[in-house]
Amino acid sequence: MGSTDAHLSAGSANEGMDDVEVEVLAEPELVDSVLIEGLPGVGHVGTLVAEHLIEEGESELLRRIYSEHLPPQVTVSESGLAELVCIECHHVVLGDRDLLVVTGDQQAGSGVGHYRIAEAVLDIAEEVGVESVLALGGVPTGELVEDHAVLGAASSESLIETLESSGVEFRENEPEGGIVGISGLLVGLGGRSGLDAACLMGETSGYLVDPKSAQAVLGVLEDLLEFEVDLTDLEERADEMEDVVERMQEIENQNMPTEDDLRYIG
Amino acid sequence: MGSTDAHLSAGSANEGMDDVEVEVLAEPELVDSVLIEGLPGVGHVGTLVAEHLIEEGESELLRRIYSEHLPPQVTVSESGLAELVCIECHHVVLGDRDLLVVTGDQQAGSGVGHYRIAEAVLDIAEEVGVESVLALGGVPTGELVEDHAVLGAASSESLIETLESSGVEFRENEPEGGIVGISGLLVGLGGRSGLDAACLMGETSGYLVDPKSAQAVLGVLEDLLEFEVDLTDLEERADEMEDVVERMQEIENQNMPTEDDLRYIG
Amino acid sequence: MGSTDAHLSAGSANEGMDDVEVEVLAEPELVDSVLIEGLPGVGHVGTLVAEHLIEEGESELLRRIYSEHLPPQVTVSESGLAELVCIECHHVVLGDRDLLVVTGDQQAGSGVGHYRIAEAVLDIAEEVGVESVLALGGVPTGELVEDHAVLGAASSESLIETLESSGVEFRENEPEGGIVGISGLLVGLGGRSGLDAACLMGETSGYLVDPKSAQAVLGVLEDLLEFEVDLTDLEERADEMEDVVERMQEIENQNMPTEDDLRYIG
Amino acid sequence: MGSTDAHLSAGSANEGMDDVEVEVLAEPELVDSVLIEGLPGVGHVGTLVAEHLIEEGESELLRRIYSEHLPPQVTVSESGLAELVCIECHHVVLGDRDLLVVTGDQQAGSGVGHYRIAEAVLDIAEEVGVESVLALGGVPTGELVEDHAVLGAASSESLIETLESSGVEFRENEPEGGIVGISGLLVGLGGRSGLDAACLMGETSGYLVDPKSAQAVLGVLEDLLEFEVDLTDLEERADEMEDVVERMQEIENQNMPTEDDLRYIG
Repeated sequence: MGSTDAHLSAGSANEGMDDVEVEVLAEPELVDSVLIEGLPGVGHVGTLVAEHLIEEGESELLRRIYSEHLPPQVTVSESGLAELVCIECHHVVLGDRDLLVVTGDQQAGSGVGHYRIAEAVLDIAEEVGVESVLALGGVPTGELVEDHAVLGAASSESLIETLESSGVEFRENEPEGGIVGISGLLVGLGGRSGLDAACLMGETSGYLVDPKSAQAVLGVLEDLLEFEVDLTDLEERADEMEDVVERMQEIENQNMPTEDDLRYIG
Repeated sequence: MGSTDAHLSAGSANEGMDDVEVEVLAEPELVDSVLIEGLPGVGHVGTLVAEHLIEEGESELLRRIYSEHLPPQVTVSESGLAELVCIECHHVVLGDRDLLVVTGDQQAGSGVGHYRIAEAVLDIAEEVGVESVLALGGVPTGELVEDHAVLGAASSESLIETLESSGVEFRENEPEGGIVGISGLLVGLGGRSGLDAACLMGETSGYLVDPKSAQAVLGVLEDLLEFEVDLTDLEERADEMEDVVERMQEIENQNMPTEDDLRYIG
Repeated sequence: MGSTDAHLSAGSANEGMDDVEVEVLAEPELVDSVLIEGLPGVGHVGTLVAEHLIEEGESELLRRIYSEHLPPQVTVSESGLAELVCIECHHVVLGDRDLLVVTGDQQAGSGVGHYRIAEAVLDIAEEVGVESVLALGGVPTGELVEDHAVLGAASSESLIETLESSGVEFRENEPEGGIVGISGLLVGLGGRSGLDAACLMGETSGYLVDPKSAQAVLGVLEDLLEFEVDLTDLEERADEMEDVVERMQEIENQNMPTEDDLRYIG
Repeated sequence: MGSTDAHLSAGSANEGMDDVEVEVLAEPELVDSVLIEGLPGVGHVGTLVAEHLIEEGESELLRRIYSEHLPPQVTVSESGLAELVCIECHHVVLGDRDLLVVTGDQQAGSGVGHYRIAEAVLDIAEEVGVESVLALGGVPTGELVEDHAVLGAASSESLIETLESSGVEFRENEPEGGIVGISGLLVGLGGRSGLDAACLMGETSGYLVDPKSAQAVLGVLEDLLEFEVDLTDLEERADEMEDVVERMQEIENQNMPTEDDLRYIG
């Protein structure tokens, strides 16, 4: 299964270029499916969840979205392979559930770019028959968090009720300032086009990649969408992060003067 | 299995996509109407006035303007409902006066965006038969203000005279640097298209939301447009703000060393 | 002589808007004419010269250029009249010489905007039969300048010779980094389209509006284009600026500790 | 006297203007040719190599690319000639090898601009029959480098093998963050359109123009593309840079307190 497309905007610029180009890799039928977006953001919570779903479910790559609104950049793999940054849409089957999982290395680089890419994602969602949208992310608390609540915002009152019964919290004035970027737009534009759309945001310090917050979000998804995933991988990554945090705290303590040090000052 | 080109929901770029989309909610006949713009800005003066007019008059939402030139963002209500940022145009009847009141959560995020959205607003104004434009805002003084003058700039000499007789002040070299953003463009573009257009700017410190400055602007509107509105709400908000300012000043004073403190230093 | 045009991009955004709009106010025949550009820049040298030519010659406003690439702004006159920022093209007759003098309150706000507006200016130049282009500006020296040399850069060797014989200096590696903005583009794009095009840059400190540097540039223009202008106005402004500089230096000296002050320290 | 609409020299926006314009200067047949890109970047490594190839080979200028996505700027030559910034494509014959060498004074000024210009370059490459792409650059090490390794990233496994046998190193997680700008896009977009495409990056401090790093990259090209170039020029420039570095280090040492200085402190 390959790609035959030439470079973006085949033809010279004045022939009128497409600013977003979608590469079609597979076209299966999805049933009663849910779009789950996990692009890079606070604590990488969305990305961790999306990648975990792709790894744990039965997965197939359906689409790649290339765009001049993404950064002008290639990623380089461990072996040295260079690949143009893109956003990927995977079909993931978990239990009886069809998911369209959207992830990638980058978000758009401008406000207009966010709109264009969100629209491209929603077009794909429409093509494959998606009926609801869950945009995932983290909400920064500014301090290390023990208990990772999952906050929500949704396009309808009835969806708010459904999410609350799966453990999502809706708090007055949170997140302050609304939700910015593709997650916000998928909910806002998706809601306007008649989809059930919500944003699920795991609480996280905001300073570190946070696999624990990702686990909390996954817990909500399991309850809401009625599937189960093995969390071993994320737990291991969470343990690794805890080690990192502990070592950072030790180093910080070593650099703080102890009471003994202080005795000699003044 | 090959590759196809993307097409954005609104068409690919060279098909000419809508960068501004207007949702039509009602189409009443307006008579001899005035556009009043109060989008976010200095001291939230314009927004406070616009929202007060909508609350106190007989109001109907006519249009919502969505655009990729607005920030890529949803606002979240207290109950958790997410809504795509937009600019709203309300028909407001106050006394015998038909108003088209324009407000919203955000302004455009770029210079080009300001032009595009101002043009969309003026197109709507033309559709509903608006004959004059009043763009509201605040002008920062840099210090707490007791007496809130309302400064003006207008598209014609005769309008300047009319506004002066309703208490608007026209001062040489104020505002310095002209008027930037949608307020400036509604006056500039509106004036060019033959509308009577003016900007009314309430003096305000520039540091705080300023319901008193909003009251001063409302006073001018009442005189100019011959309607009356109940100001109780704004007066209460002004009292609340005064309490906030007093508490801030107390805190500041507590943190200043007193003469007694100073005695012990040196 | 009036303007009848409606607001920019008559029609809604999706009808395809013009991003630059030219208002035609007069269409005289110009003979053997020279475009002189003086838009805001270092030391306001270009603007001072352009405005002086318009005041001293027999002048008529031919075109106004409006564009969404200019800042979203109105200027406010002393009497309170608000006008959309634009770039103005005046026909100025001085002696036997036809000039197209281009000035305004603002330059474009982005790189793409600079290109679009430079192209619009060159289109107008072509319409009225301009044969050569002189883009005026200042080149910052970083210190107060007594003798204001006029540096040049030009689109052809023969033009360099002509300019040298009128007192323009061509120095290796000046200006460093080339010439940025509309002045650079008028020379670069103008040269490419077959016009004789040059940039004349008066040396100036870079910190202050500099009527003396403007006089130096005017001196070159008088010699080159064989006309004479009364410089009284600019001389008066230069005297005013010298007073300002002297007062600034006095204030600076007062704030410097004198030898007497220093005696008491340490 | 009324008003007409503007039309940009390249047509108004909705007529589809050329945002990239290619000037055709010659159209020779190239055989089995390789595109070599060396635009300004870290250590000017790519530019030094590209310019050296143009000087040492049999060269002809084929295309100039002008674009509103390049900075709005003219460069000024030593004699005072002003030229609009552009990107140049030269046909260079070295031994039996046909090269298309792409260089210039500037890269694009925005993300979208990088995409548009990379596409224009690849269109030209297609026109002249280019079969592979080598994008050159520097990779910053943050310290002065003695041995200049050449790192690689490529569009296919087989190309990685070929490059390794010519001395290119492929290291895990280098360059961190992928490759940004036109070099990245030529590899990413070129690879997508079926070209063999790679980026070769000479290690360099990142602080200085680095002719030694350029020599290392040239060494790889000589081996890979089977030609030889005289390196005398680059060696001389490398010697000059070494003198500069030595003098900088001396100055730095003079400003550092010596042990003797320190004896008197405290």
